[in-house]
Amino acid sequence: MSNDKKLVEAITAMDEDFGQWYTDIVKKADLIEYSSVRGCMIIRPYGYAIWELIQKNLDRMFKETGHQNVYMPMFIPESLLQKEKDHVEGFAPEVAWVTHGGADELTERLCVRPTSETLFCEHYANIIHSYRDLPKLYNQWCSVVRWEKTTRPFLRSLEFLWQEGHTAHATAQEAQEETIRMLEVYERFCEDYLAIPVVKGQKTDKEKFAGARATYTVESLMHDGKALQSGTTHNFGDGFAKAFEIQYTDKNNQLQYVHQTSWGVSTRLIGAIIMVHGDDNGLVLPPEVAPIQVVVIPVQQHKEGILEKAFAVKERLSKIVRVDLDDSDKMPGWKFSEHEMRGVPLRLELGPKDIEKNQCVIVRRDTREKIFISLEELETRIPQILADMQRGLLEKARTMRDKKTYTATSIEQLAAICEENPGFIKAMWCGDRDCEDRIKEETGATARCIPFTQEEIADTCVCCGEPAKHMVYWGKAY
Amino acid sequence: MSNDKKLVEAITAMDEDFGQWYTDIVKKADLIEYSSVRGCMIIRPYGYAIWELIQKNLDRMFKETGHQNVYMPMFIPESLLQKEKDHVEGFAPEVAWVTHGGADELTERLCVRPTSETLFCEHYANIIHSYRDLPKLYNQWCSVVRWEKTTRPFLRSLEFLWQEGHTAHATAQEAQEETIRMLEVYERFCEDYLAIPVVKGQKTDKEKFAGARATYTVESLMHDGKALQSGTTHNFGDGFAKAFEIQYTDKNNQLQYVHQTSWGVSTRLIGAIIMVHGDDNGLVLPPEVAPIQVVVIPVQQHKEGILEKAFAVKERLSKIVRVDLDDSDKMPGWKFSEHEMRGVPLRLELGPKDIEKNQCVIVRRDTREKIFISLEELETRIPQILADMQRGLLEKARTMRDKKTYTATSIEQLAAICEENPGFIKAMWCGDRDCEDRIKEETGATARCIPFTQEEIADTCVCCGEPAKHMVYWGKAY
Repeated sequence: MSNDKKLVEAITAMDEDFGQWYTDIVKKADLIEYSSVRGCMIIRPYGYAIWELIQKNLDRMFKETGHQNVYMPMFIPESLLQKEKDHVEGFAPEVAWVTHGGADELTERLCVRPTSETLFCEHYANIIHSYRDLPKLYNQWCSVVRWEKTTRPFLRSLEFLWQEGHTAHATAQEAQEETIRMLEVYERFCEDYLAIPVVKGQKTDKEKFAGARATYTVESLMHDGKALQSGTTHNFGDGFAKAFEIQYTDKNNQLQYVHQTSWGVSTRLIGAIIMVHGDDNGLVLPPEVAPIQVVVIPVQQHKEGILEKAFAVKERLSKIVRVDLDDSDKMPGWKFSEHEMRGVPLRLELGPKDIEKNQCVIVRRDTREKIFISLEELETRIPQILADMQRGLLEKARTMRDKKTYTATSIEQLAAICEENPGFIKAMWCGDRDCEDRIKEETGATARCIPFTQEEIADTCVCCGEPAKHMVYWGKAY
Repeated sequence: MSNDKKLVEAITAMDEDFGQWYTDIVKKADLIEYSSVRGCMIIRPYGYAIWELIQKNLDRMFKETGHQNVYMPMFIPESLLQKEKDHVEGFAPEVAWVTHGGADELTERLCVRPTSETLFCEHYANIIHSYRDLPKLYNQWCSVVRWEKTTRPFLRSLEFLWQEGHTAHATAQEAQEETIRMLEVYERFCEDYLAIPVVKGQKTDKEKFAGARATYTVESLMHDGKALQSGTTHNFGDGFAKAFEIQYTDKNNQLQYVHQTSWGVSTRLIGAIIMVHGDDNGLVLPPEVAPIQVVVIPVQQHKEGILEKAFAVKERLSKIVRVDLDDSDKMPGWKFSEHEMRGVPLRLELGPKDIEKNQCVIVRRDTREKIFISLEELETRIPQILADMQRGLLEKARTMRDKKTYTATSIEQLAAICEENPGFIKAMWCGDRDCEDRIKEETGATARCIPFTQEEIADTCVCCGEPAKHMVYWGKAY
C-alpha cells in the first residue's frame, strides 16, 4: 500500500494548483514526454492511441459528409504565403523559416506550414476549371508549426497534430452551408465522443481567422472556469479566390470566383478531455476515446486458477471492447491507482471470492461506483455500463458548465465574476471593437463567441451603454 | 469515341519512354499534382486513398507484432543530430535547416527530420531504466525531408510520407530477431497486399544505413528491369545506445546498453505498384489496395430502369467491396478508358440486354477478360474474381521478375546484361569494397543485396577472381 499512496500523493490537487495538476496528469498518465526541442512534445503511445481514436471517428464523419483526404507539402514559399494580405499579417510573425537545404542557401525562404490555405488555393487554381469540378471537399491530417513564446502540452505547442479541411464551392450559400455543417460535425463529435458540451457561435471580427470573412467556433469550459476554443470553421467568401485567381466557368459559360471554407481541430482536444473530465486521481477518459475501456485486475493472482479465469474473461471481452489485463507483480492497490491515473473507464476485479460466486466487481472510474455482475452477463452488462458512463460524463460536464455560466449587466459585474468565479459570462455587446478591447483590459475576458442561441439579457452594451447588438459569451481562455 | 481515343493516345507507351510513361500515369491517374515547392508533391485524393489502405494494413500488422505508435517532434537540434558520428555524416548533407522562428534568429539551428533515430534515442535514454522497461517497440507515421537534387514523384522527393519503427531490446539476439521479423512483415505485405514479389537479403557495408551495424532489404523489380529498394530494416547493435547513453539495469543489477533496430517503408511503394503492374492503358491496382475495387458503368443509362438497376447493384456490392458507380454524362467508351487509366480492378457493365438476361459483364483490368455473371451470383462471384486477380497479379509479377533474373560469371557478362536486358543479375563477390566500386563503375549496377537464399554460381568473385564469399543480386536501381 505504500506504493499506492506514493502514487496518489504525487499528483497536485486540482484546487491547489490547476496548472500543476494538469502538467502532472499529462506526464503521469504517460500521455507526453518533453523533448530537447523547445515547445515540442513527444506524444507517447497512450496519448497517441487517444489521438488515433479521435482521428478514426472524425475521419469517418468527414467521409460520411463527402470529404476526401489529401496531402500537401509541409513547406510554403515566402512569396506564396504573402499572396493574401490579412493571412500573411496573421501568420508571418509566428512561422519557422527554412533557409538552407544541405549546405546551400535557398534563393527563397520556405516556411514550415502554420496552416495550408495558401497551398490549397494554389492547388485549387490549378485543378478547378469548370462548375463540374465543384465542390472540392478536401481534408488533410498533418502537423503544423507556430512559433509560440509560451507553450503547454496539447494546449499550445510549437508543433501540433491536427486536421485541416479546405473546400471550394460554386456559390456563397454553399460555402456558408459547409461552414455550419462542419461546425455541427465538431459539436456532435465533442458531445458524442468526448462527452464535452460546447457552445456554438460566431467569433467577433477581432477574434476571427486571418483572412476569413467569418469564423465560427465550438467553445468548451474547463474545470477551472476557463474557456477552450475546441474547433473552428471559417468562411472565406471569395477573398482567397481573388488573391489566388481561383475561377471556374459556370453553366452559362461565365467566369466566376469560387467560395471557400476551412476548418480544423487539433490535439488540443486531448487537453480538453483532461481539463473537463479529470479529477484528483488523474485522467478520466470517455469510453468512446479510451484506448483501454476495461482493465482486468486479478486479485490474489498467485492463487491457483485466478489468472486463467482472468485471462478467459479478458478473451471474452476482447471481442466487444478494448480490454487489457494487468498481471504484473505489483500489489492490486497500486494497480488500482495506476489505472485510475490513466483514466481507464472500468476496472474489473476478479478474486477467489468472486470466482466462488461466479461474479466480478466493476468499478466505474468517474463515480467509483462498485457494480457486482455475474460472469454470465459480461457481454451484455459491460457495454451498458460503458454507455452509462459515457452519458454520465456528458451530463456531469454539462451541469458543471451550466453552473459556471453567469450573466453580467455591468462591466464591474463582469470583472467581479472573472475574478471570483471564472466561467462563461453572458453579457450584451454593441458590436464595437473599442468596447471589446476595453472589456479585455478591465476584466481579462475575451469574446468567446456570439452564440447562435441569443438571449435578451439587456438592451444595452455592458461596456458603453449604447444599444446592444448581440449577446456574447465572454470568458478567460486558454 | 473521340474522347476515348484521345485519352488513350495521351499516355506515352511504356516501351517508348518508360520515364515518361511513369510520369503520365502519376498525373493522369490523378495520383499527384506538382506544387510550387521544388521536389514536393501534392498527393491527390485517389493517390492518398491508396496510401491510406497501405497504412491501414501495415499498421494492423505492426500492432499484431506488438508495436505501438508514437509521435516525435519534426525538428532535430543540430547538436542532437551530431551525436552519432556515422549517422550525421550520412544525413547532414541532405537536410533542411530552420534558422529563424518568426523574426528571431535561433541560437541553434534545427533540421527538419530526415529520419528520427536521434529523437528516439534521446527519448529512450529518458524512459528506459530497468529490464522491466524493455523491449520498447515504437513506430511513427509521419513525413520526412531529404534535400535531394533530382526528384521523381513517389520515388524520390524532398518530402515524403513514411513509417519509421524504432525499437530497443535487452539483448543483441532480440534486436536481430526483430530486424528479421520486420523484414518478413514487409515481405508478406508486399506479396499479399501489393502483389509484388521481393528478394530478401542483407545490404553490403557500402549500401547500409548511416549508423547501422547491418541493413536488410526487400528488393523488387520494375517493368523496365530496374530494382527498387522497397523496405529496409536496420540492426544498430549498441552503437546508438553508447552514443546516447541508453542503459538499463539488468536482473543482476548490472548496467547494460540496449540493442536497437529501425525499419521503414514509404510512399515509394506506390511507385512500385505503378512500375510492377501498370501497362500502356495506365495504372493497374491490386484489389487489396485499390480505393475502388469495382466500378459500375451503366450502358445506355438514359433508358428507363437502367440507372435504378445499376444503383441497386452498387448498393448490394457496397456491403462487400469498395464500389463506385459512374453515372456521368460521358460515353461508356470514355468511361472505360478513364477507369482503366485509374487502375480500377473490375469494371461491371450493365445495359438493357444484360438486364434482360439478368446478368452483367465483368471486365478484369489486368487480363481484360470478360466474364458474364448472373445478377444472383454477385455476392459470391465478385470477391472470387477479385481474389483471382490479386493472385494473378502476383504470379505475373513473379514470372516477369524471374524472366528478368540473370546469372553472370564475368564482369563483361554482367555489363552486357545491364546494357541489353537490365534486371536482377546474380553473380559472386569476394566481399571487397574495391570490387563493388569497380562493378558500379563498369556496369552501372549496384549490389542490391546478399540474398538469404544463396546459390553456388561459381567459386570466384566476378570481378577480381579471388575466392567468392557471397552470391549477390546486382542491378541498376531507382
